[in-house]
Amino acid sequence: MPSVFINGLGLIGSSIARLIKVGHPDVTIIGNDANPKNAEYLLEHQIIDRQVPFNQASKQADVIILATPVNIIVESLKQLGSLDLKPNTFVTDVGSSKQKILSAANQFVKDGGHFIGGHPMAGSHLTGSENGSDKLLANHTYFLANLNASDDQVKLLKELLSAGNFNFQAVSSEQHDRIVSAISYLPHVVAFSLINTVGPELTELGVDPSVPAGGLLDTTRVAMSDPNVWTSILSSSSEDVVEQIEQFEVQLQQMKAAILNNDKQTVKLQIESAKHDRQEMEDAK
Amino acid sequence: MPSVFINGLGLIGSSIARLIKVGHPDVTIIGNDANPKNAEYLLEHQIIDRQVPFNQASKQADVIILATPVNIIVESLKQLGSLDLKPNTFVTDVGSSKQKILSAANQFVKDGGHFIGGHPMAGSHLTGSENGSDKLLANHTYFLANLNASDDQVKLLKELLSAGNFNFQAVSSEQHDRIVSAISYLPHVVAFSLINTVGPELTELGVDPSVPAGGLLDTTRVAMSDPNVWTSILSSSSEDVVEQIEQFEVQLQQMKAAILNNDKQTVKLQIESAKHDRQEMEDAK
Repeated sequence: MPSVFINGLGLIGSSIARLIKVGHPDVTIIGNDANPKNAEYLLEHQIIDRQVPFNQASKQADVIILATPVNIIVESLKQLGSLDLKPNTFVTDVGSSKQKILSAANQFVKDGGHFIGGHPMAGSHLTGSENGSDKLLANHTYFLANLNASDDQVKLLKELLSAGNFNFQAVSSEQHDRIVSAISYLPHVVAFSLINTVGPELTELGVDPSVPAGGLLDTTRVAMSDPNVWTSILSSSSEDVVEQIEQFEVQLQQMKAAILNNDKQTVKLQIESAKHDRQEMEDAK
Repeated sequence: MPSVFINGLGLIGSSIARLIKVGHPDVTIIGNDANPKNAEYLLEHQIIDRQVPFNQASKQADVIILATPVNIIVESLKQLGSLDLKPNTFVTDVGSSKQKILSAANQFVKDGGHFIGGHPMAGSHLTGSENGSDKLLANHTYFLANLNASDDQVKLLKELLSAGNFNFQAVSSEQHDRIVSAISYLPHVVAFSLINTVGPELTELGVDPSVPAGGLLDTTRVAMSDPNVWTSILSSSSEDVVEQIEQFEVQLQQMKAAILNNDKQTVKLQIESAKHDRQEMEDAK
């Protein structure tokens, strides 16, 4: 049984640890986190087996999973290049900005390492190991941007994650970043800006925060996400995000013009097209 | 027991009928709808007692509830002004654009009528009497923009709707329209434009509609709303909606500039402010 080292035991890292433990109780999971509470919680609940500092844990592991924010993943990859890892060890991550990570991973590969970029497509506005769950990521898409791992290594990673029943999708790092900008970053930016518009407006109108119902609440749920995590994500993918925002601005501008000109036909066509695309996603769930 | 006439037996009208029937089984509910299927369904399920054409039903009723699209409500108010209603009969509606409706209601009042504008703050992307429910609107805010109804009439309306356990909020028609533009129309417009950005992008990238997860799906759920209903709503409130869109554009522009300039401090402040306001709504639920 391989031993797995997970660096970063927050919401995603701890959810990955749970998934591996559920599917493969015999796998040894070593954990490390800057916040000692996360490791303590997981040790106490027997989700990880040992807590070991980064360098030492990396040298013991067959599989290294980097589950910290993107800027730390980049630092970790630099660090790993200078360590004497086991010959068949491979590294994967769960980070959101694959192009940033892959450029650090390229150097790691030049230094003799093996790397598969990974990104599970689910999350929560909650944080910390306590809020992780083997259900959080399960049954969703899991992107794999393989750099130089062997077929056996890819197979091992998928096997370790088998309890997640993932829809694995092989992508390039460029494809990954464009897809994720569209389906995750843009909706977050839009939700942040929407609540920053409506919140002050309701305060000005003296409306109680209990008044808004389903429509606004659903549309802005992701605005409760962690500000540190999202500042890091938006900064490390700024080019892709800005491109998506600009495409969105064009759509919004067209909608606004149609409403302003009382062009009911265009308004209706836009809504029909939106309903069609959204319904397709609903039916594909 | 008063007799109630509901004109328009779709999602909202039929939900109101159910609420009245649950709270006051002895009240006679007369219904009318352009689509005979809606009335047939509600008669069959004993939610309404009789189906009677508009003019005749209006003359029989103590309370008239207009639950059609806004443009039909405006027409109905004109029609009601020319009919010989019972002396204590009052009219209310469930329409979304109070300023449009109130100007028609003002003429109705001049002709001797009594009018209370009403608007329950909940809904669904589903339509038709079959999809109504006594639960759909319950426990939410219900705006009342009273024009000239007596205290007893307002009391009777609230009593008829008692099974909904509503949070009734008295507002002017101008306040109503600004509030509703912020908490309902703007989120819809944003959701329509968001899916019209992301949908074609995913098609271009060859991404399956099953890939998007919670974030995008929540943010765009309301984009599955009925195109006819929403074309009518956005057209009849165009000034307020455009004003809200423009405020939103300013927020989005600030966020885009901060991301583009790698101004992490501003990005984080914006996200923190969004999280704070949204969390307040979550806690007030």
